[in-house]
Amino acid sequence: MKKEASFTVTPWEVSGEVDYDKLIKEFGTGKISSSLLQKFKDLHPLLRRGIYYSHRDLDLWIKDAEAGKKVSIVTGRGPSEKMHLGHLVPFIVAKSLQDKYNCNVYIPISEDEKFFIKSNLSFEDAQKFADDNVIDILALGFKPDKTFIVRDFSYQNLYKHSCKVAKLISYSTAKAAFGLKNENNIGWTFYPAVQATHILLPQFVSGSHRTIVPVGVDQDPFIRLTRDIAEHSSLGFVKPGAIHAKFIPGLRGSAKMSSSDAETDVIYLSDSSDEVKRKINKHAFSGGKDTLEEHRKLGGNPDIDISYQYLRMFFESDDKKLEKIYKDYKSGKLLSGELKAILIEKVSSFLKDHQKKRDLAKKQVDKFILK
Amino acid sequence: MKKEASFTVTPWEVSGEVDYDKLIKEFGTGKISSSLLQKFKDLHPLLRRGIYYSHRDLDLWIKDAEAGKKVSIVTGRGPSEKMHLGHLVPFIVAKSLQDKYNCNVYIPISEDEKFFIKSNLSFEDAQKFADDNVIDILALGFKPDKTFIVRDFSYQNLYKHSCKVAKLISYSTAKAAFGLKNENNIGWTFYPAVQATHILLPQFVSGSHRTIVPVGVDQDPFIRLTRDIAEHSSLGFVKPGAIHAKFIPGLRGSAKMSSSDAETDVIYLSDSSDEVKRKINKHAFSGGKDTLEEHRKLGGNPDIDISYQYLRMFFESDDKKLEKIYKDYKSGKLLSGELKAILIEKVSSFLKDHQKKRDLAKKQVDKFILK
Repeated sequence: MKKEASFTVTPWEVSGEVDYDKLIKEFGTGKISSSLLQKFKDLHPLLRRGIYYSHRDLDLWIKDAEAGKKVSIVTGRGPSEKMHLGHLVPFIVAKSLQDKYNCNVYIPISEDEKFFIKSNLSFEDAQKFADDNVIDILALGFKPDKTFIVRDFSYQNLYKHSCKVAKLISYSTAKAAFGLKNENNIGWTFYPAVQATHILLPQFVSGSHRTIVPVGVDQDPFIRLTRDIAEHSSLGFVKPGAIHAKFIPGLRGSAKMSSSDAETDVIYLSDSSDEVKRKINKHAFSGGKDTLEEHRKLGGNPDIDISYQYLRMFFESDDKKLEKIYKDYKSGKLLSGELKAILIEKVSSFLKDHQKKRDLAKKQVDKFILK
Repeated sequence: MKKEASFTVTPWEVSGEVDYDKLIKEFGTGKISSSLLQKFKDLHPLLRRGIYYSHRDLDLWIKDAEAGKKVSIVTGRGPSEKMHLGHLVPFIVAKSLQDKYNCNVYIPISEDEKFFIKSNLSFEDAQKFADDNVIDILALGFKPDKTFIVRDFSYQNLYKHSCKVAKLISYSTAKAAFGLKNENNIGWTFYPAVQATHILLPQFVSGSHRTIVPVGVDQDPFIRLTRDIAEHSSLGFVKPGAIHAKFIPGLRGSAKMSSSDAETDVIYLSDSSDEVKRKINKHAFSGGKDTLEEHRKLGGNPDIDISYQYLRMFFESDDKKLEKIYKDYKSGKLLSGELKAILIEKVSSFLKDHQKKRDLAKKQVDKFILK
């Protein structure tokens, strides 16, 4: 909800060079401090390397988790035709926290939202995309007895819960928070209640307790809206917490990986090894120098190099190996093509594995659906 | 949706002396013709005595019904603390048509609507009122295998169906049809989709076919809204039909019986014989003359006498007996007190019976709930 000369971050637009510390001030969230970061030590790179950098009530959530109290995680998906690497971020994080704290994870699938917003999307296709996305999510290996997929079109209690929430949100408030327009359909204008219900699902299902929602920092206005109503006497819940991620850059180095630049900016979970190789070689933004001689002499810049960034965020979990890559690239010892080759190998191997796990996950879906 | 010097009829306001024929022109509905009325010959007084006087596609509905094709009826209830006589009207009619044509009746209970609209109504009370109202409705004797109660908070497919409908209604359209305001909560602004879903329920549940909704004529704008979307390619339904009732006057002779004048204008289904006697004797608007002498000499006016009107609409099904009452009252042979005594006896006996049937209906509710 912010516009500056240099950058824009709203739930509908991310552009320019984002000043993440400024967003913390603007949104009134907390920085994930070094003492909190300590708790992430043995977790996924996305957590321990500061991609998740800001939070609301994470300290209270960890405290309860460590005291053996019930805590849980919510992270949902607005299903699209196919998922890309960036879409996995909150799920990887949820899985990592589930593994460490053995907590419940609730995964709402907002097929309704997509159906309302996309005028040409049929009811059947909205569900087909959801079916497919659920498989990608479950392929990550969530625990069947502790993970609950909520399909908006079929979860028995969704409307009932959403009614309770809807009564607490005026059209004016929803309009301001979600940028609603008069010509939008009334499913769309109701959806803010459903979204807040998603965030409150663990508490609707199993009573008041601490929850955390991993989100991109641009999504924080929705967290705030939900925190504003959670403690209302008719609900009696705890304000939901959140951890906020920086944006995952696109392959070309765009601010946020997005399917609107599908061919050049995005790695899909369904991409073949050949596609991965071609995309990275052709499009991955490089921090290397223009010529071999220059690169050898002056070195590359890993901080702006997408291949290095993807290794740091997703694919090289070994800190020492990552450090060596960083140094070698910076010194000019490691060439751009060689760095890309490392990433290509890692991504191909990850996706091959993921695609295999998808086949297994397909048969397990029913175990995860909250009826 | 109509304002004249002489009368006002909108879904939110009914006042003045209603010109029912003018409403037919205004709304573009059809008058229930004498040939259609013929079909009602052996049905409840509300049908055969012209209280239901206007329609949309009733002719097509009856044609299909008589050809043995599937037809059904929808009539719902926004649950209130307790039901009064006026509330029974569409249900009596639905029952009468079910008995004659052996058709399905769908009864949506909009506990959500009341919850959204009444700021002080709790979620629990909205359901409690619905529980109670359902018993009053079932006490009328609907067929268990052909009657489906749909509770908005618990019917599994309600939200899914409503999503399909919601996508076809813009906020602007809903705002115009339902008088929505920006400060209304977003449950309220979504409700038009739920209401249209109610009207389309038989077709959602068992495919495209002719349906009829008995409504007060003031509710026709909602029928029109639903007819406008029913045939959309994403639904593929038949436009729902309707039959429109004139207003049931209040005890004091007000235009429409309403709980806002509970004590003086309304007979509740839970009223005791003593209450009925007291209310009718004290408040029932009389068409009689001021003095016994005058009445004997000049006669009363049954056409404005509430006791006579209630006998005509609800309680004296024997046409010959009714005609005798009419003549005797008009001639002055029958006094106002005597006419009231006839009504008191009929109402007391009806309510005593109803209250007994309620006790039986309580145990049957589960058989009727659509899951």
